[in-house]
Amino acid sequence: MVFYTLGWTLKCEGVLLLLPLLTAFLYQEDTTGAFLLTILLCLGLGFLLARKKPENGIFHLREGFVSVALGWVVISLMGALPFLFSGAIPHVVDAIFETVSGFTTTGASILTDVESLPKSILFWRSFTHWIGGMGVLVFLLTLLPMTGGSHMNLMKAESPGPQVEKLVPRVRSTAMILYGIYLALTVLEVLLLLAGGAPLFDALTTAFGTAGTGGFGIRNDSITSYSTYIQVVVTVFMILFGINFNFYFMLLLRRFGRALRNEEVRAYLLIILVSVLLIGFNIRELYGSLGAAMQQAAFQVGSIITTTGFSTADFGLWPQLSQTILVVLMFVGACAGSTGGGIKVSRLVILAKSAVNELRTCLHPRSVRRECIDGRPLSHEVVHSVYAYMVAYLFVFGGSVLLITLDGFDLITNFTAVAATLNNIGPGLELVGPAQNFALFGSGAKLILIFDMLAGRLELFPILLLFLPDTWKRF
Amino acid sequence: MVFYTLGWTLKCEGVLLLLPLLTAFLYQEDTTGAFLLTILLCLGLGFLLARKKPENGIFHLREGFVSVALGWVVISLMGALPFLFSGAIPHVVDAIFETVSGFTTTGASILTDVESLPKSILFWRSFTHWIGGMGVLVFLLTLLPMTGGSHMNLMKAESPGPQVEKLVPRVRSTAMILYGIYLALTVLEVLLLLAGGAPLFDALTTAFGTAGTGGFGIRNDSITSYSTYIQVVVTVFMILFGINFNFYFMLLLRRFGRALRNEEVRAYLLIILVSVLLIGFNIRELYGSLGAAMQQAAFQVGSIITTTGFSTADFGLWPQLSQTILVVLMFVGACAGSTGGGIKVSRLVILAKSAVNELRTCLHPRSVRRECIDGRPLSHEVVHSVYAYMVAYLFVFGGSVLLITLDGFDLITNFTAVAATLNNIGPGLELVGPAQNFALFGSGAKLILIFDMLAGRLELFPILLLFLPDTWKRF
Repeated sequence: MVFYTLGWTLKCEGVLLLLPLLTAFLYQEDTTGAFLLTILLCLGLGFLLARKKPENGIFHLREGFVSVALGWVVISLMGALPFLFSGAIPHVVDAIFETVSGFTTTGASILTDVESLPKSILFWRSFTHWIGGMGVLVFLLTLLPMTGGSHMNLMKAESPGPQVEKLVPRVRSTAMILYGIYLALTVLEVLLLLAGGAPLFDALTTAFGTAGTGGFGIRNDSITSYSTYIQVVVTVFMILFGINFNFYFMLLLRRFGRALRNEEVRAYLLIILVSVLLIGFNIRELYGSLGAAMQQAAFQVGSIITTTGFSTADFGLWPQLSQTILVVLMFVGACAGSTGGGIKVSRLVILAKSAVNELRTCLHPRSVRRECIDGRPLSHEVVHSVYAYMVAYLFVFGGSVLLITLDGFDLITNFTAVAATLNNIGPGLELVGPAQNFALFGSGAKLILIFDMLAGRLELFPILLLFLPDTWKRF
Repeated sequence: MVFYTLGWTLKCEGVLLLLPLLTAFLYQEDTTGAFLLTILLCLGLGFLLARKKPENGIFHLREGFVSVALGWVVISLMGALPFLFSGAIPHVVDAIFETVSGFTTTGASILTDVESLPKSILFWRSFTHWIGGMGVLVFLLTLLPMTGGSHMNLMKAESPGPQVEKLVPRVRSTAMILYGIYLALTVLEVLLLLAGGAPLFDALTTAFGTAGTGGFGIRNDSITSYSTYIQVVVTVFMILFGINFNFYFMLLLRRFGRALRNEEVRAYLLIILVSVLLIGFNIRELYGSLGAAMQQAAFQVGSIITTTGFSTADFGLWPQLSQTILVVLMFVGACAGSTGGGIKVSRLVILAKSAVNELRTCLHPRSVRRECIDGRPLSHEVVHSVYAYMVAYLFVFGGSVLLITLDGFDLITNFTAVAATLNNIGPGLELVGPAQNFALFGSGAKLILIFDMLAGRLELFPILLLFLPDTWKRF
């Protein structure tokens, strides 16, 4: 069953690779061979793996987790091939780093000069964000017929956030609705960018980067050299893509009351508002007018909290207060059920409520109260799984910082490099700041960071499970 | 009942202040007036508050928490008076900072030149470590007659660690045994220091600083200028005072098997061993021989993991790997039931086991396994309270870093300043490194750090409860 899913995933990737191949044809670039070869490999390997349809089409939670984890590893390895074949990125670890950074919507790059690359390669690089944003295997759900709870188990493993809600009774329809919203918002952004005078190629790649909350730019200075109009459009769409997609679904159903009561979205917007105001006033003097400062603050706050990672300014040069707020936002992350990464606002809301509840229990040890969210009580399992997530997060974080310290860079570089990859953001501070990149790390540290990006995107457990001996027993 | 306990606490402090008064007499210093005045104020206020013995001598958990929190605030305020009256520390916030740092066994100082202070003031400064190490209110338990579960509720609020075990059926006897072990170990250290040629005054103050895992030194360079013998003695005793005191009790009862099975102590010693080896090899070239490097590494690892904060070297100048290991150790902390601070090894052991358990649950959703520690299953309440502690810890930590950032220092200074105070260690890195101190912060930031020290020492909840409106209802 796992092999069957992997096969279909590869076939999917092969089909998706047709788009950059088309780009290569249009711009008459010599990368067509690289893409053609990769497509053939993907399809060949895909048909080989999915040759035999297994008799029982049932997915248990374990198979779901393993399929998703392996699926992501496999598409990353195959996705790195065009970079290698075309010679755009000659080193293997670098190519995998860049591809994983793309699919996980991190946007951390090892490239120092992206403007010199062929357009088709840049297109594929940005397109990986769009593919990875909503999830490859969730996409598969809309295509593959499966039995029983199989869909749900796959979705649980790939979707971000503590709770996975079915919008409509059938998981397959839910996945289709989500992809529909995703596609519609992306098209809207492309149109608005075109209206602002951006060339089609720029509009498409920028929209891919925004939609997946990825952050790969096609210029060396990211979004800095675009007009203010385009920067504002990108700011608004980054924040929109960081909102729980259920919110949009409720809006579509005209259930405005329920949509507005969503505590996570309210907390998310409040955090953004407060951060923008604080940073805006803090950097006022750097940008002359308050308006320009607020625009810069809004762009950077939106870019960091949604874990996109675009930049219009080197915030490594901003005052300490602004930098610290941005570092805190790196961990907060976007809403669950969006394309953003990080710890997720809903987890923090649950944690805060649970901590206050615990304090109350100290006062009245015998009264048992349940935390509520959106008016409904939280089940113990959800609270418990959020706690377990935080613990695993802390261990992975601490371990990664310790391991990449072996490269000998300073504490802030290491700390924010892990924060930027584990939360799928992109830029950190100091040597990995917005004006720098990850090329300086050795291969060992890059492998750790690749692990962090995958672990962050899949919310730790699917990837960690691969290292648990029990997973491989009696398979 | 709360006032009654506060009164007794003050009377206690008045009596304990007789020791520095004696020191002032012996060295014929002009600080006698300052100490006498404070003693009179303590005793006067103490008798006033404890005048009326309440009819029902029962302590609920709420009263226990409130008494402990207020008790610590009150003894800190009164304990700051000798510094103010004698003119040793002229500024009020500074004096409170220094006293709280003493009682909470943090050892963070705002003084730039301790050698110029009167000996009696230095004695009181170090003595606060010894008093705070085991807990003032636990000491009271050995004196005050109370009813029913009252003792346990006080002890739960003041003792560090996720689980409070009664060694013997009566809580009062447990407290006496703990204080006995504490006193015996301190005396042993004083004797060993005297044998190494240290003057009595130095031996006493250094032993107070080690026993409470505090870290105030009486020299400007902390322990650096003492002989290697003394440094080794201090290293060994720091590590000994970081061990769960139950371990010693088991040894006294000759139950060696049970003592050695203690998972927390084993994890604690293993972490120390690995860290010393890693740092020792890492700083080898700085100290010529491997032996000298290992001795420095052992001292600093012991000082940081037990949250003592003595220093023999400016580890801010060590390689990044060593610095990062020390920063991680800052958070690990000592064993529960010791005098050390930090998150505590037992919490981390519980968290690690629980995270692995959660991973297993992903594989086999229907099998429910319990985490075990020391061969006994962990109750859900303990695991839950450890989680809640971690969450409260993260919120307090993040909030504090954001607030002290307003002073405009760099991220590492702010991050490690909060880490050093919330974990009751003392020195951090950069501007608050071992060769620096906390004098540079403004009064606002100092108040935040004072809060952090108290919150860290009382393990967050008692102090946080003071800010919950519910605590003050129907009192």
